[in-house]
Formats: sequence, C-alpha cells, structure tokens
Amino acid sequence: MADLQDLATRLGDRLVTDPETIAAHAHDSSRVGPEGTPLALVVARSTEDVAAALSWANAHGVPVSVRGAGTGLAGGANAYDGGLIVSLAQLTEVLELDTANRTARVQAGVITAELDALARTEGLFFPPDPASARTSTVGGNIATNAGGLRCVAHGVTSDSVAALVVVLADGRVMRTGSRTRKNVVGYDLTSLFVGSEGTLGVVTEATVRLKPVPPGSPRTFRASFDSLEAAGDAVTAIVNSAAQPEVLELMDALSVEIIESFKPSGLTVPAGAMLVGQTVGLDALAIAEEITAICRAQGATDTELSESDSLLEARRLSNPALNARGLKIGCDVGVPVAALAEVFRGIGEISGRHGKRVSTVAHAGDGNLHCTVEAPDTEAGIAEADAVIDDITRLAISLGGTISGEHGIGSVKRHELAWQLDEAALDVQRAIKAALDPRGILTPDRAI
Amino acid sequence: MADLQDLATRLGDRLVTDPETIAAHAHDSSRVGPEGTPLALVVARSTEDVAAALSWANAHGVPVSVRGAGTGLAGGANAYDGGLIVSLAQLTEVLELDTANRTARVQAGVITAELDALARTEGLFFPPDPASARTSTVGGNIATNAGGLRCVAHGVTSDSVAALVVVLADGRVMRTGSRTRKNVVGYDLTSLFVGSEGTLGVVTEATVRLKPVPPGSPRTFRASFDSLEAAGDAVTAIVNSAAQPEVLELMDALSVEIIESFKPSGLTVPAGAMLVGQTVGLDALAIAEEITAICRAQGATDTELSESDSLLEARRLSNPALNARGLKIGCDVGVPVAALAEVFRGIGEISGRHGKRVSTVAHAGDGNLHCTVEAPDTEAGIAEADAVIDDITRLAISLGGTISGEHGIGSVKRHELAWQLDEAALDVQRAIKAALDPRGILTPDRAI
Repeated sequence: MADLQDLATRLGDRLVTDPETIAAHAHDSSRVGPEGTPLALVVARSTEDVAAALSWANAHGVPVSVRGAGTGLAGGANAYDGGLIVSLAQLTEVLELDTANRTARVQAGVITAELDALARTEGLFFPPDPASARTSTVGGNIATNAGGLRCVAHGVTSDSVAALVVVLADGRVMRTGSRTRKNVVGYDLTSLFVGSEGTLGVVTEATVRLKPVPPGSPRTFRASFDSLEAAGDAVTAIVNSAAQPEVLELMDALSVEIIESFKPSGLTVPAGAMLVGQTVGLDALAIAEEITAICRAQGATDTELSESDSLLEARRLSNPALNARGLKIGCDVGVPVAALAEVFRGIGEISGRHGKRVSTVAHAGDGNLHCTVEAPDTEAGIAEADAVIDDITRLAISLGGTISGEHGIGSVKRHELAWQLDEAALDVQRAIKAALDPRGILTPDRAI
Repeated sequence: MADLQDLATRLGDRLVTDPETIAAHAHDSSRVGPEGTPLALVVARSTEDVAAALSWANAHGVPVSVRGAGTGLAGGANAYDGGLIVSLAQLTEVLELDTANRTARVQAGVITAELDALARTEGLFFPPDPASARTSTVGGNIATNAGGLRCVAHGVTSDSVAALVVVLADGRVMRTGSRTRKNVVGYDLTSLFVGSEGTLGVVTEATVRLKPVPPGSPRTFRASFDSLEAAGDAVTAIVNSAAQPEVLELMDALSVEIIESFKPSGLTVPAGAMLVGQTVGLDALAIAEEITAICRAQGATDTELSESDSLLEARRLSNPALNARGLKIGCDVGVPVAALAEVFRGIGEISGRHGKRVSTVAHAGDGNLHCTVEAPDTEAGIAEADAVIDDITRLAISLGGTISGEHGIGSVKRHELAWQLDEAALDVQRAIKAALDPRGILTPDRAI
C-alpha cells in the first residue's frame, strides 16, 4: 500500500481517510458497485489539489477514480480497491460570465442547472440539459459528453464546450481550446477529453458556450399513438419537416403507466406511445400546431397543446419512477432517427421472444432510447434482463446505431465496445490511453 | 531510396513516376513550396489504394504528403524530398445521400460545392462553405477543419462530420463515429482526425450532416462605417442581438479597393470598413432590416438591402484579388467577437509602427480575420511583412484569440504554436502523434 503521508502533507484536510466518508463517495448511480476498498478521498478545492493527487498517484501507481455529483449511470466513477477517489464536488465557482462573447468559465463541480440559472439572469442559457441537470455537475457532463432533452435542437455537451483546463496523469496542468468560434491549432484536444470518462486526464475547469434565451414563451405539445411504430414514424416526419422542436421525447405505454403510478399527473396511458415536446421562439405556438398536425397525419389518436411544463415534467420523472420500482437494467442505445419505427418493431419482437416486458423512453428527436427490462432484482433476473438488453443493443447497432448515446461506457458497457468499434479503432483508443497515461492510473479498465 | 517496384505491382497505373505530373502535385496554394523532390505520386481510386500506399511507406520509412485539390494555404499538402504524394482527387463518389437522416456518405475527393449542389436537389445543404468551396474537396476541408462564410450560423467543418473512414499509418483501415446524433463510445476519434492535417491518418470517406434549406429567399445587406472599430462594435452588437445572420463579413477600405480594382462591381470604398452579410428564413427581410438598424445605431454612414448575391460575391473575390496583386503574406487569426474593435485598433497601430499597409477581410461574425500585408515579393519584403503578421498574431493571442481560425498550421505557422499552446498541450499532441504514427511517415513535421 502506497504511503499517504506525503500526500497528506500536501493536501491537509482535503485528504480524507475516514472510512464512512470514503464509502459514501465510492460509487456512482449505476447498478454496479465499487471494485473494492479505496485508500483515501481527495476533496479537491483547486486545480493544484488535483495535480498533487495525480502526481502522487502516478508516482505510486495508485488507480484514481474521479467524481462530481456521482450521478453517472455506467460505473465510471466507482472507486478502485486500494485506489484514490478524487472528488471535484467542491470546485463550485463560476469564474467568469462573459456575456459579450456568450461564454462562461466554470469549475468542474458547478451544478449544471445552477450554471443555466445564472446564465438566464443575463438572458442566456446553457444548452446541455441532462435529466440529472439539477444534481449533476458540468464536469460530470463533460466526462460523459452528456445529452439530455434539448439535444435535438442544441447538440450534446461537446457542442457547448470551448476550452478546458485538464490535469494530466502525471500532475501537469494543460489548457485546451479557445474562446473563439474557430480554432485549428494542433489536434482538437477539447473534443478528445470531452466524453473520455476520466481516463485521459481530469477536467477541473471549462469554458462553455451559452446561447441567448429564445424570445416569447415556450409551448409544450403531446400526441398519443396506438402503436410505438406510428410514433416513431411521426418523429422521423417531424425531424424532416420545417417545424423544429427544441424537445421531442417519447414514452411508451408502459413508461407512462410507471410514471403515473409513481406520481400521478393526469396523463392518459396511450395504447402505444406518447410524444411530448417543446417549441420555442416567437413562432412557438405555430410550430407546435404544425407538429401536432404532422402527428395527426401520422395517425395520432389525440393531441394537446399547453403552455405549462407539466408534460415534460412527467417525462423527467422516468428515472426516479423506474428506480422506485427497483428497475435498473436498461440501455442507452441510439439509432438514426429514420430507423426509429424499425427499432421499436424489433424491441417488441425481442420483448416477446424473451417473455419480458420492456419499457421505453426516448430522446426521440435524436434517436436516443432508454429501454428498461422488467425483471426481479436477483442474479437470475438480472442475467435475463441483461440478455434482453444485449439483443436490443445488437439490434441498434445493426440499424447503424450506437451502444451509448449519452451515458458513456464506464464499466457497464465495456463488453459491448467490440460490437460497435472495429479492431483498429479499439487499438487507436488504447494507444492514445497508453500515450497519455503510461502508468494506467486514470480510471483504469473503463470506457475503452 | 526505397524500392518502388513492390508498390507499383500493387497499384498499377495509380502509381505515377512521371516527373512533370509529380511536380504538378507537389505543392498546395500556400506561399511556401515543396521540401524537395518526391519519389512518386499515388492517384488513389479506393481506400485500399491508400492503404497499400501507406503500408508500403510505413515499411520503408518514406514520408507521405496527402492532397485533395491542393487549395490549402498553410503548406500542409506540400511534398517531401524522397516522399510519396497520395492524391485523393479521384475519390469523387457520393456513396449515399440519406435524406431521411440528413446525412451523406462521400469519398474524400468530392468537391465541396458539388456535394452542396447535390444536397440542394433534395432540399438540403452542406453547411461548410469555405471560400474555396468550388474547387476544394470535402477531404481537404476535413483535414484543415475548414471554416468559411456560414460558420457564424452553422459552425465549422467538424460540426458537420458524423463519421470517417481513415487509413492509419500502417495501412490499417479504421471507422470512427456514428450516423446517430449522440454517440459516447470511447474517445471522439472523429473530432481528433478532423483538423489533424494528414498527420494521424488519411481520411478517405466521410459521413457528413446536412441541413434543410431554409424556406423563403435569402437577403443580403451592407453597412459602411467611417472606422474599422465602429464596424467591429457593430458586429459585436449584431451577434449579441436577436437578429442572427447566416453570413456576417467585414472588408476594410483597402480590401474593398483591392477587390474593386480586380473586378469592379460598383461598391463604394468606405472610409473605414464595410459589413456585408446574408439572412435566411421566412423572416429574412425583417432580420436584415434589424441588422442594418443596429448598424446605423452603431454609426453606419450608409446601409443597403438586396435580394442579389453580388455583395457576397465581392467578398468572395478577396483571395483572387490579393493573388492578382502578388500579395501573399497574411494571417488567419481569430479573436472572441467582443474583442473585434480592440483587435482592429491594434492592427492600425501595428501597421503604422511598421509603416506597412495592411488590408483586412474578416469572417466577422465569428471573429476570424485575414490580414494581408502590402510588401514587395522579395526576401526583404517578405521578412518585413512576416514581422507585421507576427505582431498581429501575438495581439490576437493576447486578446484570448487563436493563431489559426480555419486554414490550419501546416508548415507556415508551426513557429507560432508555442505562442498559443502550453508545453503540456504541445507534449500531448506529440504523444498522440507518436502513438498513432510511430515511424513518423504521415505529413511529418507539420501541424503540431
């Protein structure tokens, strides 16, 4: 076991060895647990603290896990046996809000929704909007290249990140990117580190891009369908129309049932699926009307327009509602939007073949599906559910899709990597990892 | 000298050793020439041809330069002494136009404007719009992460690239990315290869994202100002308003004079500078009116609205007009948009101090400036002009800017890299290069 004394001297009370505190920081929100008993927790208060921790870990060959709020769903922030946990949760400063250039410079531990709220005081907003926004951190969003509800209009987290401060494996501090819109100066290290899940370096600070809040009031819409496939075709039609929503989500019948029984909001469970979404701008109402008209033309049995956010609130309850039922085995697959109807047909077939009920919510506008399998929380139940998820994942890949849209690979999906990536791509990722972290201390054996 | 026979056997007539043909393919459009006499030219007709060429070059330690149409401005495609030139200009097939998912799969040698024209037959368009679009290739745009006139609305090339086929240094073929909007599966290799200027691998095929052509007719606008600084402040005001242009360009007085004397279009040379731009969508006219109103509030002496493209055409003539005057020493710096007035003030001061006239055109909406120094095409003249450009470049960096917005580093700007990047970032780039191209055959000693 590496000697902690040197690190304790450098970090003082930011180095925590109390077992209970360590245990509380040892896991993320995924279904898998930590890999053993970590050595210590570093509650960083500065980039220099992180640099000290990594420099020490690198010298001693100690594996490091990194965490923000611990809301990750892929096991990426789980602790290692004999490892160091680096928490960025106390790096909560917004260092600069540059309204004239529409950027903010923030520390990694800033809560995503708090950054968004601060930007809104200046008529701007932070586009990334993961379901966890009220608890997750900007740094965590960056680590997983988080998505969310507004991606169909504003892209994923990487589309909103301009520059980073990164602590490398050996403790050196690196700056990437530029506040400028264009920047072709060497390799795009910013994009390389976004989504790298703590395996190449630790992001302690980010310069993010903000957008102006659209004028007018947002509108929400709902459309119910007798079948999932019809809802999928409606999504494809909407995305390919001139009527562009800011949010376009799907809940299948079982999802609505689960959400309504968790916290009733008066939603009628559809026969097949329900689309809900939001439009913004001065034409918000006209766009929402056009979208519901498209839905009716695509077979919607019932549509609704609203000025309230309650339709989206129901959608946001999906995760808590599933958790309350103890349902943990799900996926985060993506398909090209035009393949939505086909993937839904396939999921129905897979569900039937396995004799397992599958509920699906989707960031439908960008083809990102979260399917959850109803199965008992036993070893056998989990194995059965995993088999269903495996089939759904392979189906998504066969349709030109992806094994992870927004949660990342972590430890949970590592066995699926070779389903999607070719041998050369796997090799290149391993080569980059080895080049930047030669001792393999940063979140080892995850993500790639 | 490596034995070419083995390669000739594999490539047949795609291996060219005729000195004149080789010489015609040995340089790009930059002011610097090839580094010596290349060995041979490979006119690739397939990804496999490129793989054969790289595999051979890697085995023999032969340096490789890669070219599309040779329109690059940074010397990135210039040939090496004893090296192999790989031309992708014959890879001209559009392999798939997927309108339902708004993507196109194209070979690297497809001309950018031709892809755009094809997409428009389906009501879509290809957002990247470098000034060279009518001659440059999609692969070349990807290699330099090219920008252009529409970036203020649609981002740079990397924002439109979803997936790549890349030949690695050892000849292996790798696929990156996904057609899906979201994809967090290992490192973002697509973004790493975009803008890597041929130093990490050779992109032979790309899946690019298309956008729907906005409804209605585009409008163009012009506003003339008595000073560059006032025009700069107007740009900042426009970008921070609700009136978002698709194009927002600036030409200073000297630029307009140079363009008008090259091909008169009736533009009145402004006292300071001229903004020209385009708006799109059903509200194009209203947005253009709002933009010119902002310009007048910011001191514009004269504004104009038009339905014709002639204002932008004049802007597009800037490069040919400069070339016709033999003016080659310029820059491609970027600054945050709010720093435009300040950078213009500084350029005036630098110009005065050096006693050299500087003309400036700018993709003003994203703070990307091309300044050109008037100097004789002699060794002394070039040295004097370079000193001016160095000062402008350092000024841009001091304002939070970049040494290259859209042309890349190539060989021309390599000495400036350390002005912008810290030692750790330079090291990380070298480590990635060494990991992916251990023998250093791919476009060696450029870009990083």
